[in-house]
Amino acid sequence: MTTSTQAPSTKAQGEELREQVLAAARRAKQAAAELAVANRDTKDALLHDMADALVRRAPEIIAANDLDVAAGREAGLAEDMIDRLRLDDDRIAGMADGLRTVAGLPDPVGEVLRGQVLPNGLQLQQVRVPLGVVGIVYEGRPNVTVDAAGLTLKAGNAVLLRGSSSAERSNTVLVSILTDVVVEHGLPADSVQLLPCHDRASVRYLITARGLVDVVIPRGGAGLISAVVEQATVPAIETGVGNCHVYVDAKADVDTALRILLNSKARRVSVCNAAENLLVHQDIAAEFLPRALSELHSAGVTVHGDEQVVEAGGPNVVPATAEDWDTEYLSHDIAAAVVESLPAAVEHIRAHGSGHTEAIVTDDVRAARQFSAQVDAAAVMVNASTAFTDGGEFGMGAEIGISTQKLHARGPMGLPELTSTKWLAFGDGHVRGTGASGVNSCPAG
Amino acid sequence: MTTSTQAPSTKAQGEELREQVLAAARRAKQAAAELAVANRDTKDALLHDMADALVRRAPEIIAANDLDVAAGREAGLAEDMIDRLRLDDDRIAGMADGLRTVAGLPDPVGEVLRGQVLPNGLQLQQVRVPLGVVGIVYEGRPNVTVDAAGLTLKAGNAVLLRGSSSAERSNTVLVSILTDVVVEHGLPADSVQLLPCHDRASVRYLITARGLVDVVIPRGGAGLISAVVEQATVPAIETGVGNCHVYVDAKADVDTALRILLNSKARRVSVCNAAENLLVHQDIAAEFLPRALSELHSAGVTVHGDEQVVEAGGPNVVPATAEDWDTEYLSHDIAAAVVESLPAAVEHIRAHGSGHTEAIVTDDVRAARQFSAQVDAAAVMVNASTAFTDGGEFGMGAEIGISTQKLHARGPMGLPELTSTKWLAFGDGHVRGTGASGVNSCPAG
Repeated sequence: MTTSTQAPSTKAQGEELREQVLAAARRAKQAAAELAVANRDTKDALLHDMADALVRRAPEIIAANDLDVAAGREAGLAEDMIDRLRLDDDRIAGMADGLRTVAGLPDPVGEVLRGQVLPNGLQLQQVRVPLGVVGIVYEGRPNVTVDAAGLTLKAGNAVLLRGSSSAERSNTVLVSILTDVVVEHGLPADSVQLLPCHDRASVRYLITARGLVDVVIPRGGAGLISAVVEQATVPAIETGVGNCHVYVDAKADVDTALRILLNSKARRVSVCNAAENLLVHQDIAAEFLPRALSELHSAGVTVHGDEQVVEAGGPNVVPATAEDWDTEYLSHDIAAAVVESLPAAVEHIRAHGSGHTEAIVTDDVRAARQFSAQVDAAAVMVNASTAFTDGGEFGMGAEIGISTQKLHARGPMGLPELTSTKWLAFGDGHVRGTGASGVNSCPAG
Repeated sequence: MTTSTQAPSTKAQGEELREQVLAAARRAKQAAAELAVANRDTKDALLHDMADALVRRAPEIIAANDLDVAAGREAGLAEDMIDRLRLDDDRIAGMADGLRTVAGLPDPVGEVLRGQVLPNGLQLQQVRVPLGVVGIVYEGRPNVTVDAAGLTLKAGNAVLLRGSSSAERSNTVLVSILTDVVVEHGLPADSVQLLPCHDRASVRYLITARGLVDVVIPRGGAGLISAVVEQATVPAIETGVGNCHVYVDAKADVDTALRILLNSKARRVSVCNAAENLLVHQDIAAEFLPRALSELHSAGVTVHGDEQVVEAGGPNVVPATAEDWDTEYLSHDIAAAVVESLPAAVEHIRAHGSGHTEAIVTDDVRAARQFSAQVDAAAVMVNASTAFTDGGEFGMGAEIGISTQKLHARGPMGLPELTSTKWLAFGDGHVRGTGASGVNSCPAG
């Protein structure tokens, strides 16, 4: 295995890596066929035993993680990256609890979504089935390895994990512990596989493995997500970029608006559901802005304001540049603008939002109705913080990511979003008439 | 506009075409925002008036179509292609009826899919919303122009149509008639747009217009579909390639099996739900094969058989090559093999199927259960013809295509499959606690 983080130095190495990734995908496809017909009992017992094994073998995990952390330090990784990388007994217990939570969730596989008897007597039903082989490309934190494996397995899928090279030793031990339990349960050893992580090309081979990989989900920063979505030829789900707005309407209650703004922006600044933009209706700006700017100042937030916001002033206000409206800061920064109307706010969000979460604060029921109908995003909050867009908060128990695209799944993705469907038709020798009935849209239909 | 069917002859022409496509997409995005909030009443009235306008203005359509047909003849288009291209009063009436059918279907937009009050009192609901801008890339028949426009509009979407150059005059008149009605109803003129069709590059610009186009659906042959899916950076839905199998189990009723085989293969050979492969359990081969080969012969079907099928013989039997198992003939041909067991049939289908429709004929309930659980396809038929996989037959009233991928939609795609979803949360100033609760999976979550 090459230890360089560069592209493979020779064509032969590239070819070898490609074959390695495709071979893993082929084995995953075989494993997926067995996992697809595993009962819930089997899958839940598997997850519980995985949780126990992680706790029991915590010293192995921590020993490997110590090496990753030391290597990270040596490579000059920033302290917050080191913190994300680090595993301790508490974090391992947290991963184990996550698996137990997933074990307790309903099995999505086999759920009958629709069903009817057709006029000709054919019995038709649409049932949930696993997706098959799920690829996850992620950065940083090794707990994603366990979370993603638990969710994909519970939904009956095989998983190909492509983590960060900085966590390689930790991820390798984690996957080997999970795999030991998989094998103990008589399930295929290839159900959970870690792909080579030292070469960006392994991502490319994974996301172009059409016919072997059914979906790829990138989890990480905007750059990673965009690269995966643009280069993938297997279906990909865009996740997690959140340029979220809080719009304070003319008829907002000011105290409510302040509480929601501060919670949306400053509760945790590094998460995708944090607000990055404040829009204030001009009719309430004089009353609202001074208090908002002052409270944001107390919370350590720098405001990148338009002309009117800068005029309202304050030690934490700087003039916004054109880029600010499109920036997901993930820091103690927020862009802020005064808008002349609700439609102007909607238009601003349409131009700059990332389709994650948009909030309105208003006591006007017409404004609430208009905003929630016209704003196109995974989640629209009326008089609530953007921070609520989260699988846990939405009662899903767990999530694999937050989709910001419109196909397949939008918003927090739980277990049902990790499945596909299948139509089953039961007949008695039914054949179709030769008339031109039907609406068949085949090439020559 | 260039009239060459080649790639643009200069870089400047390519840039101009690109800007033309992107400008159309931008206008479509604006139109989509208006369409998204159109009521069902408005949309249904629009579709009915479109239907009436098509019938009323049939002479214009036929005049344009005559020119396309003449040009096709001159270009040496095959007679079956000419037939697909041709429009007459009957076919125009058929398109109009299709629009009226769609008008009669329930509006998917606004349907509440899930909803609950969260423990903290936040009211949460998931509602259907339009996808936004839908791109359709299609070949041949101009009726797709009207079908696709009707379905996408009813689901609240704007549509960008990229039809075949051979139907350009027909499609131009059809879109201009539809647009006249759109404008009469006060809806945006850019709701339905026809893209330039003389240059393959316009497809590429369409399917890479990220941020402007929400989904692209190719409708046509395997080559078109594969090219679109592989090159698209906007989400694409793979449709319609059907390498469908009929598996005759050991315990099949022979008469039933013959009826289903003949209907699946020979009802219409050029459609994607036609059977292209016959698999026969070895225990029934001696009884079934001679009759099957003879009946297929009577139906004019050539059988590409494995060794045992060739031994069973007949004037219409030729030896299969390795490619036959993966070939979607769309003609009076079928590949046929004897398998030693049901698991062997499942394995054959896993290796060669396209995930469209797979059928088993059996009187054995265990075999039926096993096959339907283990075969991974959009539709599995038990004792029924593969020909039933069709939006019309499934009671959807209409379909935009048959998805053979696992993401978003699988099988016939009707109106609900042309929508996305949105979470709406209604609070009273709800903010989220600062604890580490939740399962947020953001980069730094």
